[in-house]
Amino acid sequence: MAKPVLRAVFLDIDDTLYASTQFAQAARRSGLQAMLDLGLKGDLEVLYQELLEVVAEFSSNDGHHYDKLLLRLPSESFAGINPALLVASAVVAYHRTKADGLRVFDGVYPCLRYLRRYGVLIGIISSGRTIKQAEKLVRLGVLPYLHPEGVFISEQIGIDKPNPKIFEKVLKRFRLSPGEVMYIGDHPQKDILPAHRLGICTVWMLQGSRYRGQRGVPAMYILENYTQLLEVFQQDFELCSYDGFLRSDDD
Amino acid sequence: MAKPVLRAVFLDIDDTLYASTQFAQAARRSGLQAMLDLGLKGDLEVLYQELLEVVAEFSSNDGHHYDKLLLRLPSESFAGINPALLVASAVVAYHRTKADGLRVFDGVYPCLRYLRRYGVLIGIISSGRTIKQAEKLVRLGVLPYLHPEGVFISEQIGIDKPNPKIFEKVLKRFRLSPGEVMYIGDHPQKDILPAHRLGICTVWMLQGSRYRGQRGVPAMYILENYTQLLEVFQQDFELCSYDGFLRSDDD
Repeated sequence: MAKPVLRAVFLDIDDTLYASTQFAQAARRSGLQAMLDLGLKGDLEVLYQELLEVVAEFSSNDGHHYDKLLLRLPSESFAGINPALLVASAVVAYHRTKADGLRVFDGVYPCLRYLRRYGVLIGIISSGRTIKQAEKLVRLGVLPYLHPEGVFISEQIGIDKPNPKIFEKVLKRFRLSPGEVMYIGDHPQKDILPAHRLGICTVWMLQGSRYRGQRGVPAMYILENYTQLLEVFQQDFELCSYDGFLRSDDD
Repeated sequence: MAKPVLRAVFLDIDDTLYASTQFAQAARRSGLQAMLDLGLKGDLEVLYQELLEVVAEFSSNDGHHYDKLLLRLPSESFAGINPALLVASAVVAYHRTKADGLRVFDGVYPCLRYLRRYGVLIGIISSGRTIKQAEKLVRLGVLPYLHPEGVFISEQIGIDKPNPKIFEKVLKRFRLSPGEVMYIGDHPQKDILPAHRLGICTVWMLQGSRYRGQRGVPAMYILENYTQLLEVFQQDFELCSYDGFLRSDDD
C-alpha cells in the first residue's frame, strides 16, 4: 500500500519545540535569586509562590512581575536597598537565563534537517504575543529551517487556537489539503483536537507536555520525543517537496 | 597645606561610566545587520540613517524602533518575509550586543576599588528611565561598589539634571556638605555646571564625551581618562570614610 504523502509540517512552539514551562520556572527563580543576592530578605520558595500569583493575576505577558512582587512584600524586606536595583538585577538574571538557556528538545534539528532534505515545508502555528514568539524562534535557532511566510502567531493574525480557522487559514494560504499536512503540539484541546477535526495528521508530543495524563486524545501519533518522530517520517510517509505557489489573502 | 577631604563620589552613567553613544551605534547596527541577514533588502548605512531618524522622532526610550523602521520602508524590501521575524532578529541581535558588550571604561574598577578601600561613599546621579538605568548598572558590574541607597535616577525621583535640586537632594539625604563631594560626568551643561554652582568638586570626563570641544566649562578637573582620575584621588585629596547616618526624606 502506498504511504501517505507529506508536504508540510507545522509545529507549536511552547512545550513543543522546547521546555517552556520548565524554562520559565528556571528563569523566574534565577531572577528571584539575584534579588536575594542583592539583599532582599525572604525565602526563595515563598517568593517563588508569590511570583506565580503575580503571573496568574497579571498574565505572563505583563512586563513588570518583579516590580509587582516588591509591591506585595513588606517594605522591611528590602529596607535600605533601592527597589529599582532589585528589579533590574532580577530582570538581567532572567534575561541571561533566557539568552543562554533557550534550547530546542533533543532530536528537533535532525527532524528539521530530514524534512528539509526532501523539501517539505516547515512552519509554525502558535498562540501568543507576536514579538515574544518570534524572538523565541530566533533564539531557538530554527528560523533557517522555516518557510519565510510559514510562521503564524495568533496575535499577528487575529485568530487563536483552538479556533480551527487558524489551521484553515494556513491550509488556504499554502493551497494544501489537510491530508498532506502534519501538526505537532503539546496541548490536547488547543493543538490536537482542532487540527484532527480538519483531517490534519496530528502528533501529540509528550516530551514537554503538562497534559501527559489525559486519556482519549484523538492524535494520530502520541510520541515521547523527536527520535520517535524521525522514525515516523522515515517509515510512515512519503515526504514530498512543497512546490506550490502561495495564495494571497485576496484570492 | 592640608588636602581637601573627600567623603563621597557620585558618577553619571552614560558616556561617563561607559561609551553609551558608541555602544548604542554598535547595537543598532548589529540589529540592522540581522535583518539584512534574514533577507531584508537595503543598504546598512541607508537603513542606519533611517533608524536614527526613528530614534530622534520617537525618543530613544520607545521600544519599537525596528517595527517603525519597517513601516517606513517600501514593502517590496521585505516581500515574502514575515516582518515579525525581521523585528525579532533585530531585537535579539541588539540584546546580544547589549548582554555581551556593556563594559565600563578602562580604569573605572581601579578607581572604585581605591575609593572603597578608604570607605568613600560611591553613588550614581543619572538621567533616564529607572529600569533602563538600573539595568545598565547591573550589567556594568558596578553594583557591588555602590551604596545601596546611593543611586539616584531622574525618573525615580522626579527631578532631572540640570536642575540643581537633584544634587541638593543627594547632599541632604546623606548629610554631606558640597565641599566633601565629587561629581563625575560627561556633559558640561547637565553635569558640570549645576554641580559646580553648588560647590561640589566636578570632574569633566572627556573619554566618552560628545562635548569635548567646548570651551569655558567650569569643571575643577578636566580629565582624559580614569587613570588620571586615580592619580587625582591619590595626590589631591584626603579620602575619608563615609560614616554618616542617612537622613530620611521627612527630616
